[in-house]
Amino acid sequence: FEDLRGRWIERYADHPYVEGWIDGIRVDVVPCYRAEPGKWLTAVDRTPYHTEYIKSRLSGEALDQVRLLKKFTKGIGVYGADIKTGGFSGYLCELLIVNYGDFIKTLEAASKWGRRTIIDIGGYYRGRLGEAKKKFQHPLVLVDPVDSNRNVAAAVRLETLCNFIMASKCFLRKPLRVFFDPPKPVKLTEESLKRRLESRGLDLVAVSFGAVEAVPDVLWGQLYRTLDSLRALLENWGFKVYRAKAWTDEHGLTVLLFELESSILSRLKLHMGPPVFSEEFWNFLSKHLGKRAASTGPWIEGDRLFVEVERRFRDVKDLLEYFLKVDGGISVGVRGKVAEAIGRGFKVLKNTELWNTMSVNADFNLFISEFLDGLPIWLKVWLEEAEANFDEARDVKAR
Amino acid sequence: FEDLRGRWIERYADHPYVEGWIDGIRVDVVPCYRAEPGKWLTAVDRTPYHTEYIKSRLSGEALDQVRLLKKFTKGIGVYGADIKTGGFSGYLCELLIVNYGDFIKTLEAASKWGRRTIIDIGGYYRGRLGEAKKKFQHPLVLVDPVDSNRNVAAAVRLETLCNFIMASKCFLRKPLRVFFDPPKPVKLTEESLKRRLESRGLDLVAVSFGAVEAVPDVLWGQLYRTLDSLRALLENWGFKVYRAKAWTDEHGLTVLLFELESSILSRLKLHMGPPVFSEEFWNFLSKHLGKRAASTGPWIEGDRLFVEVERRFRDVKDLLEYFLKVDGGISVGVRGKVAEAIGRGFKVLKNTELWNTMSVNADFNLFISEFLDGLPIWLKVWLEEAEANFDEARDVKAR
Repeated sequence: FEDLRGRWIERYADHPYVEGWIDGIRVDVVPCYRAEPGKWLTAVDRTPYHTEYIKSRLSGEALDQVRLLKKFTKGIGVYGADIKTGGFSGYLCELLIVNYGDFIKTLEAASKWGRRTIIDIGGYYRGRLGEAKKKFQHPLVLVDPVDSNRNVAAAVRLETLCNFIMASKCFLRKPLRVFFDPPKPVKLTEESLKRRLESRGLDLVAVSFGAVEAVPDVLWGQLYRTLDSLRALLENWGFKVYRAKAWTDEHGLTVLLFELESSILSRLKLHMGPPVFSEEFWNFLSKHLGKRAASTGPWIEGDRLFVEVERRFRDVKDLLEYFLKVDGGISVGVRGKVAEAIGRGFKVLKNTELWNTMSVNADFNLFISEFLDGLPIWLKVWLEEAEANFDEARDVKAR
Repeated sequence: FEDLRGRWIERYADHPYVEGWIDGIRVDVVPCYRAEPGKWLTAVDRTPYHTEYIKSRLSGEALDQVRLLKKFTKGIGVYGADIKTGGFSGYLCELLIVNYGDFIKTLEAASKWGRRTIIDIGGYYRGRLGEAKKKFQHPLVLVDPVDSNRNVAAAVRLETLCNFIMASKCFLRKPLRVFFDPPKPVKLTEESLKRRLESRGLDLVAVSFGAVEAVPDVLWGQLYRTLDSLRALLENWGFKVYRAKAWTDEHGLTVLLFELESSILSRLKLHMGPPVFSEEFWNFLSKHLGKRAASTGPWIEGDRLFVEVERRFRDVKDLLEYFLKVDGGISVGVRGKVAEAIGRGFKVLKNTELWNTMSVNADFNLFISEFLDGLPIWLKVWLEEAEANFDEARDVKAR
């Protein structure tokens, strides 16, 4: 890099590598062992074989088809085998073109993919597809022609796969540039944020904190699992969670965003007790004894006791603050690195309280804008086009 | 009756009978056939055999024990095999004393009853209890000693049974007069109604209409089934129903009462669409096309499309009025006689709007008062006694 007048830095994924920049282009230099096929020492030892395989199968026009597919997957946000994206690697795109011939044929095939699709270019599992299904527990399986024990699409999450399938279906029905080059969402003003929140009548709640100190794959892995844990926490305490999403710029700001039917619940909640036949009958009755003033019942429904008791947390803010302030939320399933970041300070923001952060962080503003739309920007544009042409809409209906 | 200077009227249940009043006491004269056991022509032909059986098995002190049990079941509201009560007939009380010996032993046995109890005084099913369980699909089975094909407790509903079991347990732990002679609930004032509703933070919604013109058993059968239908209707449209109860004075006023977590819901609701793989994909997308302005999405979760769309009914009042005004609610499961009554006019009342009716109808006032307590009055008094004595409460806890 120094010879080429570039900057460089040593980084670590599974193994060390060097990341450099030359004329504004990022170049990674990743060392690997010269290994025999099947006798891999590191995850990247297959790469020379991959390169060789692709070179032997694709050339000329076919390479343009690969570029189209990569641009398409990038445009709809499913390009990349990293944890954040959970999508399609470059090698996977190349193999799809090898397998299906060109870009359009790939989309045609994808639009017919089912819940478990297996593509076996090398024919390793010919007549034994059941075996491959058992071996690879992923929604999409493409057996590596260089290594029959590896699924090239192992990183593809079900949701990413389904977004690709949806985009394929839409593109084939009406191809638009937007799939390759989507515009940014509309930036929100304080006024437009307020208006949109009011017209929806749902509540946005954000847990906002600083950077999670970990490499991106660890960071996103922990963020996703934390999001699931907190969603379960909210639901356990009676809140109806419509959507949950994580966002971070990976260096300064991290946000876990929840959309709730309501962020404030009724004072009393229904609580099911034991059957009257049960050993627990007296326990339940005596526990209820001290709380009679603030509650209703017990009465019997079916063979069980029921009561209405006061909720411990009516406001989602109280609930989140209570569980996050102790240990960063470890006890309710917040993952280690995320809990550390939360431990350094966090805020729970509701609805228009998000504006302060949005006003100073443009990317976060766009994230909220797209979240309120609730659909990928390419689909938004595509639907607008479809709507503009009423006959086409009827046509869609008719098929 | 005329000889005894009483009034009388001819009435009809399964068969005609004469109801009269002599010195303020109601006397029913019910004709029956003189039938051989097993060759019954009407439901009441067994009665002379019942009388004979009880006379041969109970006398003196035992009859007082029967009176105690009847008074107890009456006090806790489970006396009567009519549809409204779904409880214990006089004959059932008598047979329980025959079987268990006295009042206390009956309660001791009841406190140990399970989900399916079979009492077979005549020993008809000795060694074949499984057969009896199959034959009689009721929560409590007492085989009629006069007719092995009949369950004397067939009318007892699970909830009534469980209330009897609960009362038995409580009485044995601490016997109080209240079980035999419960006080009336406290009558509510406009002020106290308002205060209690506010402190609970839940919503009461009542469908109020005139008399249902049918004999009590038909009336209550239809009311209960209507209540279930309307509860399901509310839940289908997104309302959380905590409790539902029917009330009527059987001649002027009928009320179906629901307690909801909230009577107003969010403007948008979450709606799950089909998987992207499915045939329904295009239908769903095109249906969503015209509603884009007022909605969010579609986005993908798992392998399915999701959207947030506007609710058709945000206010439970709109929902109930919409479905009841057409045909009295027949289309949503309101039963015939009830629908007729609703068709003659109904109101949907919310929270303090109930006061007008409560102020002119004392019994309805007491019904609302007990409903807000949420527990039978005997249990309320019993719990107050238990609470007054803290040691006892601890004792309850310890066992």
